[in-house]
Amino acid sequence: MSDSPGPVAVHGSAPAGPSDQATVRRSNLGLVLRHLRTAGPRSRARIAQDTGLNKATVSSLVTELVARGLVTEGGIERAGSVGRPGVIVELAGGGACGIGVELNVDFLACLVLDLRGEVLFERMVAHDVPALGAEGTLGEVACLVGAAIDATAAIGATPVGLTVAVPGLVESAAGVATLAPNLHWEGVDVVTGLRRRLPGAAFAIRVENDANLAAIAEWAMGDEAGATDLVYVTGEVGVGGGVIVAGQLLRGASGFSGEVGHVSLGDPDQVCGCGRRGCWETTVGLNALLRDAADDDDPVHDPERDLEARLAEIERRAQAGERRTLDALHRVGVSLGIGVALLINVFNPRVVVLGGYFAVLGRFLMTPLHAELAARVFGPGLGGARVTLSRLGFTAAVRGGAHVALQSVFADPTLVPATVAGPVPATRTPARR
Amino acid sequence: MSDSPGPVAVHGSAPAGPSDQATVRRSNLGLVLRHLRTAGPRSRARIAQDTGLNKATVSSLVTELVARGLVTEGGIERAGSVGRPGVIVELAGGGACGIGVELNVDFLACLVLDLRGEVLFERMVAHDVPALGAEGTLGEVACLVGAAIDATAAIGATPVGLTVAVPGLVESAAGVATLAPNLHWEGVDVVTGLRRRLPGAAFAIRVENDANLAAIAEWAMGDEAGATDLVYVTGEVGVGGGVIVAGQLLRGASGFSGEVGHVSLGDPDQVCGCGRRGCWETTVGLNALLRDAADDDDPVHDPERDLEARLAEIERRAQAGERRTLDALHRVGVSLGIGVALLINVFNPRVVVLGGYFAVLGRFLMTPLHAELAARVFGPGLGGARVTLSRLGFTAAVRGGAHVALQSVFADPTLVPATVAGPVPATRTPARR
Repeated sequence: MSDSPGPVAVHGSAPAGPSDQATVRRSNLGLVLRHLRTAGPRSRARIAQDTGLNKATVSSLVTELVARGLVTEGGIERAGSVGRPGVIVELAGGGACGIGVELNVDFLACLVLDLRGEVLFERMVAHDVPALGAEGTLGEVACLVGAAIDATAAIGATPVGLTVAVPGLVESAAGVATLAPNLHWEGVDVVTGLRRRLPGAAFAIRVENDANLAAIAEWAMGDEAGATDLVYVTGEVGVGGGVIVAGQLLRGASGFSGEVGHVSLGDPDQVCGCGRRGCWETTVGLNALLRDAADDDDPVHDPERDLEARLAEIERRAQAGERRTLDALHRVGVSLGIGVALLINVFNPRVVVLGGYFAVLGRFLMTPLHAELAARVFGPGLGGARVTLSRLGFTAAVRGGAHVALQSVFADPTLVPATVAGPVPATRTPARR
Repeated sequence: MSDSPGPVAVHGSAPAGPSDQATVRRSNLGLVLRHLRTAGPRSRARIAQDTGLNKATVSSLVTELVARGLVTEGGIERAGSVGRPGVIVELAGGGACGIGVELNVDFLACLVLDLRGEVLFERMVAHDVPALGAEGTLGEVACLVGAAIDATAAIGATPVGLTVAVPGLVESAAGVATLAPNLHWEGVDVVTGLRRRLPGAAFAIRVENDANLAAIAEWAMGDEAGATDLVYVTGEVGVGGGVIVAGQLLRGASGFSGEVGHVSLGDPDQVCGCGRRGCWETTVGLNALLRDAADDDDPVHDPERDLEARLAEIERRAQAGERRTLDALHRVGVSLGIGVALLINVFNPRVVVLGGYFAVLGRFLMTPLHAELAARVFGPGLGGARVTLSRLGFTAAVRGGAHVALQSVFADPTLVPATVAGPVPATRTPARR
């Protein structure tokens, strides 16, 4: 077991080269930083005890991590430890931070996390992304990231990476969104496009599949954190899956795994955003729900309106017992159950986390969903699987993106330059978001 | 990347305990043995060069492996190496061997592999396993294993393990076949049952899912050996999947992954062996083909007849252009394509290997199959996936079982006692167990 709550394999682990002194030092700096994330604040003495490093080494490592602004010292260790109490070392809040961006069919979202996992900035804006086009969208994304950079700079935080979540096939190594039919995107060079629009950004920019990032977020910081076998299913206009297998993100041979929205479980007469008929998305995607629940001119269809407000309206109608809405939700629940049963039969996960709109409207979906699971899952007792609703909601992908953006620092803390000679003052006040 | 062609995770890796001298020695013995399997025969000097171990250590390790009968020395290294030619070290043939057994709906099979991957024994017998019942079947399996032990003893080989492949849910750690509906088995304690019937067997006995073992075989010794992302689909009375993800067997949280035969892609009006309707198995399993291709009283339905002969008869009719047979094969090909498209969308494998009867009759299935893939796979160019026919045929699961049975020795060569003090004579005869 790795001590890292994030699947490091997302960007590969450190190369197995010769262990010169600098390499060992970097590796040990990362070890201490990751240990503080996993195990929580503790004294230098306890870090030494936990990691097997000697005390003098730990002291030197902590001093360097303080100088790089990655950890702070202060406070006295609480009871429960052996020996005299030590000064507490903990991850620095508000310093190095990761930016996650999601671009989806009808919204853009951005969220910034610091090393402690605290949210430094958060914004979600309604946009008709297919209408905006790739150039227009990347322009809006750059604005949003610019706002995030300004906001974090104002509180003294420094972005170390940006991860962009895209609902579709992504070739991460090339920085390209290969195929995102619901956005009408094909072969969009996201990384180059953003790099050009963010000339001052000194940090790494990556692009990833949205469901993969959401799965990482659930695994790293959701209610199911640490579940070694986890399947995440997004419910937005598109439907995608992100799968954690034995604690690692399933990527597939080309990074195209988890395209559950396009398996042939849907209505054979409905055309999918991808041009095919019968994809699962045609019966469980957001548009399937809206189509069944409301006439075309109903404002819940308007992509320029805030998605959460539109879903709140659906929820209100369901609570009021509106037949058409309840029937539409029931149909989604049945079809969702058929697909989740498939995922349980294939992956035998410990937990299936339903995100996006499934999480918002979940209580109207769970009864028909569970009836289908009971009828269709081959393993007794669902093979030990539970189905839960994400509490990260629409922030799962951006949280995963921010988490991945921070991974490089946890792998190699020397990526953040030493800017201070002593401990970081404890009175820093993060600005309001 | 591990240098082992078998996913060691099947039985866990060595515990990360303190590295005392004996542990290091065992680990290095395994390293040399696995290196010889992966890299092929070579001199002590080259082993040292390849592994980074020093020459004296390698010499001592090789001497011990010779004494344990696991490697042999002889022959002179061919051109291409640096320095003076050395005596070649290679895996010993005919010594330590692993036994694989498959019990399926209408046959039992057994195959024995030595360390070199050579087949020392192979037998497949027609049996109506559901009619025999669990007790009767385990009795027949014990007879078959007894025959294998006798045959290997006659050539001086010694079994180090037995793995039994079962078509259904298996709890390996408990040694139990949890649910195998096509066998009418539920909660059958396979390991205890065989242990009782094989009192002289001093080796480990394991039970595993058949498709998982077949996937391991394809990965370890099939045409697709080493493919890091591989999906295997069995075509027998039951249909199952085994999946290699990033070089490791996908097991799932309870070991129940890969139950693709029971996803809801089949004929909603057909009852599956599991009691549900609409499982994929109802349109692609062997019985679906036979039902469509021949009347009930046709001898191709007779489970007491040899399966390969029955399939040869189907093949003959297809070659002769018999309409009903061709139509039945076409329907299977279409449904197979729908399911394989699903697996490609979900796993994004490098290769999908079709085994069992799919491999035998594959040339009649591939055209409709590929038409469905072209229509249904979301990733361009099938996401880089190929679909191939297994050349291991019905031996895939037993080969995988034998391979897994040998894994313990590759992990820890000291499991095989040293029986000779010096180099092993070619005529060595280990005592019978």
